[in-house]
Amino acid sequence: MTTALDFARQHQQRFLDELKTLLRIPSVSTDPAHRDHVRQAATHIATELTRIGLENVRLIETTGTSPTGHPLVYADWLHAPGATTVLFYGHYDVQPPEPLDEWLSPPFEPTERDGNLYARGAVDDKGQMFMHIKAVESLFAANGKLPLNVRFLIEGEEEVGGEGIAAYVATRPADLHADFAIVSDTSMFAPGLPTLCIGLRGMIYTEIEVRSARSDLHSGYGGAAPNSFNALAHILAKIKDESGQILIPGIQDTVLPPAEDERRSWQSLPFDEEEFRETVLGSQAIVGDSRFSVQERIWAQPTFDVHGIRGGFTGVGAKTVIPAKALAKASMRLVPNMSAADSFTRYRSFIEQVCPPGVSVEVRLIHSAEPSLIPIDNPWIRAAASAMTQVWGRETVFVRSGGSIPIVGDLQRHLALPCVMMGFGLADDNLHAPNEKFCLRNFHLGIESILRFLESAATLPPTR
Amino acid sequence: MTTALDFARQHQQRFLDELKTLLRIPSVSTDPAHRDHVRQAATHIATELTRIGLENVRLIETTGTSPTGHPLVYADWLHAPGATTVLFYGHYDVQPPEPLDEWLSPPFEPTERDGNLYARGAVDDKGQMFMHIKAVESLFAANGKLPLNVRFLIEGEEEVGGEGIAAYVATRPADLHADFAIVSDTSMFAPGLPTLCIGLRGMIYTEIEVRSARSDLHSGYGGAAPNSFNALAHILAKIKDESGQILIPGIQDTVLPPAEDERRSWQSLPFDEEEFRETVLGSQAIVGDSRFSVQERIWAQPTFDVHGIRGGFTGVGAKTVIPAKALAKASMRLVPNMSAADSFTRYRSFIEQVCPPGVSVEVRLIHSAEPSLIPIDNPWIRAAASAMTQVWGRETVFVRSGGSIPIVGDLQRHLALPCVMMGFGLADDNLHAPNEKFCLRNFHLGIESILRFLESAATLPPTR
Repeated sequence: MTTALDFARQHQQRFLDELKTLLRIPSVSTDPAHRDHVRQAATHIATELTRIGLENVRLIETTGTSPTGHPLVYADWLHAPGATTVLFYGHYDVQPPEPLDEWLSPPFEPTERDGNLYARGAVDDKGQMFMHIKAVESLFAANGKLPLNVRFLIEGEEEVGGEGIAAYVATRPADLHADFAIVSDTSMFAPGLPTLCIGLRGMIYTEIEVRSARSDLHSGYGGAAPNSFNALAHILAKIKDESGQILIPGIQDTVLPPAEDERRSWQSLPFDEEEFRETVLGSQAIVGDSRFSVQERIWAQPTFDVHGIRGGFTGVGAKTVIPAKALAKASMRLVPNMSAADSFTRYRSFIEQVCPPGVSVEVRLIHSAEPSLIPIDNPWIRAAASAMTQVWGRETVFVRSGGSIPIVGDLQRHLALPCVMMGFGLADDNLHAPNEKFCLRNFHLGIESILRFLESAATLPPTR
Repeated sequence: MTTALDFARQHQQRFLDELKTLLRIPSVSTDPAHRDHVRQAATHIATELTRIGLENVRLIETTGTSPTGHPLVYADWLHAPGATTVLFYGHYDVQPPEPLDEWLSPPFEPTERDGNLYARGAVDDKGQMFMHIKAVESLFAANGKLPLNVRFLIEGEEEVGGEGIAAYVATRPADLHADFAIVSDTSMFAPGLPTLCIGLRGMIYTEIEVRSARSDLHSGYGGAAPNSFNALAHILAKIKDESGQILIPGIQDTVLPPAEDERRSWQSLPFDEEEFRETVLGSQAIVGDSRFSVQERIWAQPTFDVHGIRGGFTGVGAKTVIPAKALAKASMRLVPNMSAADSFTRYRSFIEQVCPPGVSVEVRLIHSAEPSLIPIDNPWIRAAASAMTQVWGRETVFVRSGGSIPIVGDLQRHLALPCVMMGFGLADDNLHAPNEKFCLRNFHLGIESILRFLESAATLPPTR
């Protein structure tokens, strides 16, 4: 009899081809022009889940406040009475591919180069989400049934705030009853180093709009006329200073410093600052608050980043105008135990306070996510660590992520579900940037890791 | 016999209709897409100059460094031997009309409302330049010849820096031999108040480009990764503080304070700060360096304005990216006796010095103009002031402008030509902004003012 592992190894090429088909669907959730593509991706996944043997497959229209309204994909197989139940979470939407001219191959034409698969969504998160489906398919293929109960919940709004799934999870539906969740939307700390992520930053994503006049003015009035852009620059410069410190009073009061043993474990991670700077950041220098290690800056300290600024004259040549309106898109990343609501209140009132004379400012919250810290003293995390160690032949490390996966906090808060964040991305995968990729070896060994973890979890007694 | 004044009054409607035809040509010089329209405007004016009786009409292709390459229009009539020669300067190009959705009537469909003519270029400068042509046409019509020698030099690159005409003037061509120049590209200090402008600010128009990484990054690295936009905000905030003071060391060392009697004359101008704020600026407040009067801030102090910022994610929704590149368009207005070259050197080296850690900055000069101060002790200025007083029934005032007209400095420097800046715009004409307009009464009385000034100048002995 073929084992699930044998099956997965024998079907690597087909699994990869199927992933490419999914990656060709440009499911950019933030762009209304791609609305139909997003739904097409959802339908495609629902069809695939049905094909491999799952039941109750359906699209769930969400009731979040998001105007995008991309559906959740749900499926289950619950014929292992008395056995553990696992909830698989992933997302089928992707970031916009812009700037297009920096891609070496088209973002929606998956291309293999040097052992990697290049495409928007390759690693974030279609490729990683697809590993779950292929692991379950392999289990089905080997035994004709599964050794444990499974549920899938796959969303299409992760890149736009995930309000739909948040609203759904908040209703505590019976659909989500499980012992633990698996989320594969994070990275390995180093190539070949099995990694479990146990902490995530939260976020407040905002727009800051400054108005200086009824309409644009000739800059001959400069010196007496307020300028929305000059004012915006002053505001942004006051939120975070050049040394990387956030200057909003009180906002860091609730920051929980990492425990001493967690901090020590970070110090023992294989980390070369120079290589990180060159390979991952691609910048001239690592910046930030030098009182903290680079890991602590990214994993355990809040930050403030401007994502873009719009308005005024930005064409070729010269237009001597004082623009009436300037808009910045900017966010703060939050860490345990900051609260998104409290942080936004302090952020907005600070901006209103430091707003320069002569202009008005409006601060809008686009979306928010709470930070998460996962307890590691549970059998699922231990089983996951041990499965990964077995597949990769190295001790599994525990890290955090500087990014945000809002669903992890939601599952924890509303359903008391522990999340196993078993991620297979690499630091140079160009997430959210041109030339996003997924290492092919990680795709295949990721499927094996999940397989082994599921087989092991099936032998453990349910905790719920 | 009909006088020139009678002729101008009898043909007001035709003159206005002809102006509308010219305004319908979207001669946006900064936009390569409008290249043919700009040339069409030049040809249209050349045809009109020929029609009214001028000679040697031609387009002059310039040899400036500008890639736009819009031609000069030249024409003359030199059959008044021993009489004065006047050089008319104007420009036929216009600013971009954006933002289009703020125009109440289309920018290139001239529309009369409430005694005004609304269109891009209505006052800046097609409408004012066209007054010169109509004044000369009226003189021809009355006498079959002119009482003095005239030359026209009309450019198509004023709104993009005027490099072509600057290069042409620098060659001191015989074409430009004259006793004085008339420039109608400025405003009246108040409605109905005849005004001669005797000072202009210069400018350095620049691009500031900040780079923080090879390519855009996921903002999960925020806190350790440099951010081009955060850095740009710090740079811009350091150039001018919130009180309006430029912080670039030494840049104001050569600023010439206005003479005591000029400052006194400014204090006696009819000026209501509250009305200026509401009507002209349309802002909540007048800002700037409170050590100086509002006039002095605009006319006799340098300033720094950001015109627009480009880059990063600015679409609908959220993209959590740290943009690798941020670009600001920004300028400094200069005052007598600052030099554009020296100012730019100090500006660039200051920006390089204050550039935050971890990013690189490049500062590019897009174009520059020297500031100008016109001596008022010459017969042409006196004749102009007296002609205007006669037409408008009030004493002519002498003011400066916060804007820049590079050609004025060029004519002064290369040809020692005094400029008579006889402008008929109004402060609420929305120059460079949506809903640009020209007051119809000013168009018609402007023609009469120029007519009377020319008749008076014809009686004065040439000075060259």
